[in-house]
Amino acid sequence: MCPPSDHSHPIAVDAPDTATPGAAASPALIEDLVIANHILFDQGVVDAFGHISVRHDKRPDRFLLARNMAPGNVTSDDIVEFTLDGEPVDARGRKVYLERFIHGEVFRARPDVMAVVHSHSHSIVPLSVVKGVKLQAIFHMAGFVGQGAPVFEIRDFGGDSTDLLISDNALGRGLAGMFADADIVLMRGHGSTVVAKSIPQVVYRAIYAELNARYQLQASQLGDVTYLTAGESQACLDRVEGQTQRPWDFWKSQARERRRGTAG
Amino acid sequence: MCPPSDHSHPIAVDAPDTATPGAAASPALIEDLVIANHILFDQGVVDAFGHISVRHDKRPDRFLLARNMAPGNVTSDDIVEFTLDGEPVDARGRKVYLERFIHGEVFRARPDVMAVVHSHSHSIVPLSVVKGVKLQAIFHMAGFVGQGAPVFEIRDFGGDSTDLLISDNALGRGLAGMFADADIVLMRGHGSTVVAKSIPQVVYRAIYAELNARYQLQASQLGDVTYLTAGESQACLDRVEGQTQRPWDFWKSQARERRRGTAG
Amino acid sequence: MCPPSDHSHPIAVDAPDTATPGAAASPALIEDLVIANHILFDQGVVDAFGHISVRHDKRPDRFLLARNMAPGNVTSDDIVEFTLDGEPVDARGRKVYLERFIHGEVFRARPDVMAVVHSHSHSIVPLSVVKGVKLQAIFHMAGFVGQGAPVFEIRDFGGDSTDLLISDNALGRGLAGMFADADIVLMRGHGSTVVAKSIPQVVYRAIYAELNARYQLQASQLGDVTYLTAGESQACLDRVEGQTQRPWDFWKSQARERRRGTAG
Amino acid sequence: MCPPSDHSHPIAVDAPDTATPGAAASPALIEDLVIANHILFDQGVVDAFGHISVRHDKRPDRFLLARNMAPGNVTSDDIVEFTLDGEPVDARGRKVYLERFIHGEVFRARPDVMAVVHSHSHSIVPLSVVKGVKLQAIFHMAGFVGQGAPVFEIRDFGGDSTDLLISDNALGRGLAGMFADADIVLMRGHGSTVVAKSIPQVVYRAIYAELNARYQLQASQLGDVTYLTAGESQACLDRVEGQTQRPWDFWKSQARERRRGTAG
Repeated sequence: MCPPSDHSHPIAVDAPDTATPGAAASPALIEDLVIANHILFDQGVVDAFGHISVRHDKRPDRFLLARNMAPGNVTSDDIVEFTLDGEPVDARGRKVYLERFIHGEVFRARPDVMAVVHSHSHSIVPLSVVKGVKLQAIFHMAGFVGQGAPVFEIRDFGGDSTDLLISDNALGRGLAGMFADADIVLMRGHGSTVVAKSIPQVVYRAIYAELNARYQLQASQLGDVTYLTAGESQACLDRVEGQTQRPWDFWKSQARERRRGTAG
Repeated sequence: MCPPSDHSHPIAVDAPDTATPGAAASPALIEDLVIANHILFDQGVVDAFGHISVRHDKRPDRFLLARNMAPGNVTSDDIVEFTLDGEPVDARGRKVYLERFIHGEVFRARPDVMAVVHSHSHSIVPLSVVKGVKLQAIFHMAGFVGQGAPVFEIRDFGGDSTDLLISDNALGRGLAGMFADADIVLMRGHGSTVVAKSIPQVVYRAIYAELNARYQLQASQLGDVTYLTAGESQACLDRVEGQTQRPWDFWKSQARERRRGTAG
Repeated sequence: MCPPSDHSHPIAVDAPDTATPGAAASPALIEDLVIANHILFDQGVVDAFGHISVRHDKRPDRFLLARNMAPGNVTSDDIVEFTLDGEPVDARGRKVYLERFIHGEVFRARPDVMAVVHSHSHSIVPLSVVKGVKLQAIFHMAGFVGQGAPVFEIRDFGGDSTDLLISDNALGRGLAGMFADADIVLMRGHGSTVVAKSIPQVVYRAIYAELNARYQLQASQLGDVTYLTAGESQACLDRVEGQTQRPWDFWKSQARERRRGTAG
Repeated sequence: MCPPSDHSHPIAVDAPDTATPGAAASPALIEDLVIANHILFDQGVVDAFGHISVRHDKRPDRFLLARNMAPGNVTSDDIVEFTLDGEPVDARGRKVYLERFIHGEVFRARPDVMAVVHSHSHSIVPLSVVKGVKLQAIFHMAGFVGQGAPVFEIRDFGGDSTDLLISDNALGRGLAGMFADADIVLMRGHGSTVVAKSIPQVVYRAIYAELNARYQLQASQLGDVTYLTAGESQACLDRVEGQTQRPWDFWKSQARERRRGTAG
């Protein structure tokens, strides 16, 4: 193993504020984004890595994302506004996530998407590297997974010696293109990105995608699996995601309880 | 993936109070139901979803179940009375669980049953989708599982495009019918329902059914498994469930300790 | 499933005090036994079930064991003295563990043994039911496991319709006989019993037997496994168990920290 | 099983202070070493066993390591200075880790290495004993693992009846020699040793090596796996490890929060 080269580009990067600030995002939206960071950590979807964004509620060509830091400690002061090109509006010298291009390009490609989670959760990573295996809806809570989630193979876009990260807009566009017929895309040897109409829904999906992967790993070892049909997936999606308020309220109450009396 | 359609029926529903209130249930019964909700959450049997009911101790044609909410936060004010048809008696505008029909129809079909748990615990779901595999008693704590738990395949009752949920009395009756010779029924791609003579016993069974499933998943990967014989299952059931007070007292003390000083 | 029969014998039993009290056991020994109960719970070896005993330090024909209760809540007031026949000396009406015969008969058969743990830990149970598989030392911390732990098949002693429990002295003697050449015996569909020269050592062994089982389950799924040789097992046993004070001190400090400020 | 022999050498040993103290190490370095002990415990890499060392910042021929104790409770008063031969400089009668020879010989063989972790984490041990299987980089966070970590088979150095421990300088040199082309070496039936340029980096690597092993165990059971190419491993290493400050800051904040108000 060689040491990091002088030309390495860290995951946390400095980026100048090149765009003009506009109307401020709703404080309620920012508060939801903060608590979503905590929930994703509490539920084991992210550790010190992974991130969640939301489209700006006043300007659909902008999105909000924490500065470069561990999600579990994010506060409202840590939220930065970005253009869809991934340029920070108000970073004011704070380092930002290298992989912000995932969010910008997905928001651009899917105007209906309001929130995006990128993570490396524990059962998604192994599923992403097994040849011929696709994440597929196995239970009623994960209808959004559908009949076989696409897998983003970065070798098709950047050759076989990349760092696997979505480190520029071109790679972001490659990944975003796979969301044409899917709300979740696995990334080989890396993790997944999942999209939804709201913060509660995308948090719900990130948590249940991990569970679906876990159950699929376990069931596949025992024999042939009965997956959901396309009709079942759609019906489950319609029904279960008709409201995600129940789990959201609960996870929020837990996240607040855990942080009671702490600085964070 | 399409967005939820306008005609979707959420898991939490509004239902008018159509039945007449009668004698109030025992406060001790309600207290046990509340703590059972907490225990099932603490032990990982339910997350933000899943529910437990108890038959009304004054009126066997009624049962008690929390309003639509996460079990971990239930208080006595959240308990709602229902008829066996699943009609709320005193919801007073609070949303109720869509799947209350599971409880009503099982209480109707099995007059000996006093308590019901429906959940999606982590090892039950994968076992429910493997073709040709049945949950089977593997250790002395799970004699109630017997020699192969039936699996409810909703396609046999509602076709291959349902949302997998027990969303009306007809589906509830279909499921309830499978309890003729069993105290636990798996539901393909969904979870399980387990019944017992009391709240402590049904909580015990929900927890140990999950463990039995977990051990079965692990053992099956290594080779042929020696399951309990019918005689062993029955003897274990007689012996171990002769009293469930020991674990119940312990889980209760833990649940209270964890909630000490919290709002809940 | 039938309800418990009228003739069922619960796990917790009433037993009259038939023996004469003698010299009191050392308070330090009782304190270690109490904290050992807590450690075994904290480390996941026991849940609401399972128990640990120690030989009486003044009378080798007696042993100490908690009254019938969950190990995590045991205090010094809950410790009961027993004869090797499993007769309580000072139960004073408190219910006792049905399976106390495990401890008495093992102490009788193995005069060198000072402490015994019986448990149903999560990786031991599945290993106990796979045909042709034996728990075998896989890493340096588990030399005491040796070259293949015997499995107690209760059908050989009580037929194929027992409740799998060691509910009398005859079954206890059957189990104890398997400790002639082993310090750990698996019990099919039930769990394991492990013995040692002291409380810290038996706690150590119960914890690391579970880890050995877990690693063995995982490794066996990937291919042929290199187990420890007999020479390695013995050398590891000599070296690692030469002192168990390091983990014992640490587990004890954790157990006390967790119970700080609680009633227990 | 025989009892420990009279000639057994415990894991904790007494060693006289034979070398001369020199310039004191930086307090900041010692503080980082203390918190690293806590993080490795919190993240499940070590339990009551395992250790982390750092090269002395004033004298490259010395290193710092805790006295013999569980890492989770280490304080700055517990840090001892050693020569590369493993001789304590200031143990002052406190017992030291038997396996300090791992650290000394690796620091000697690899002048570029500044920090070393030796542990028995839960997925590394099973991978270390499966014939023909090597730990291999499976995701972008573990580029440092490379194309197949070497496995140290102690039978090649000490015969087939050792205690598997690195109990002298000769065995330490045997292990250290395997770091010529690797930053992580598995030890059959024992665990692993991982090296890096700094404390934060070696902690990062120990945590993510365990995750890589866990994902590899799971993925291998499902089919053929796409591992990282050599180019991808190197690019991931360059990029991701260009900074490990993000996870380090987060783990540190968690470790401090957990120990708030405790004696430790």
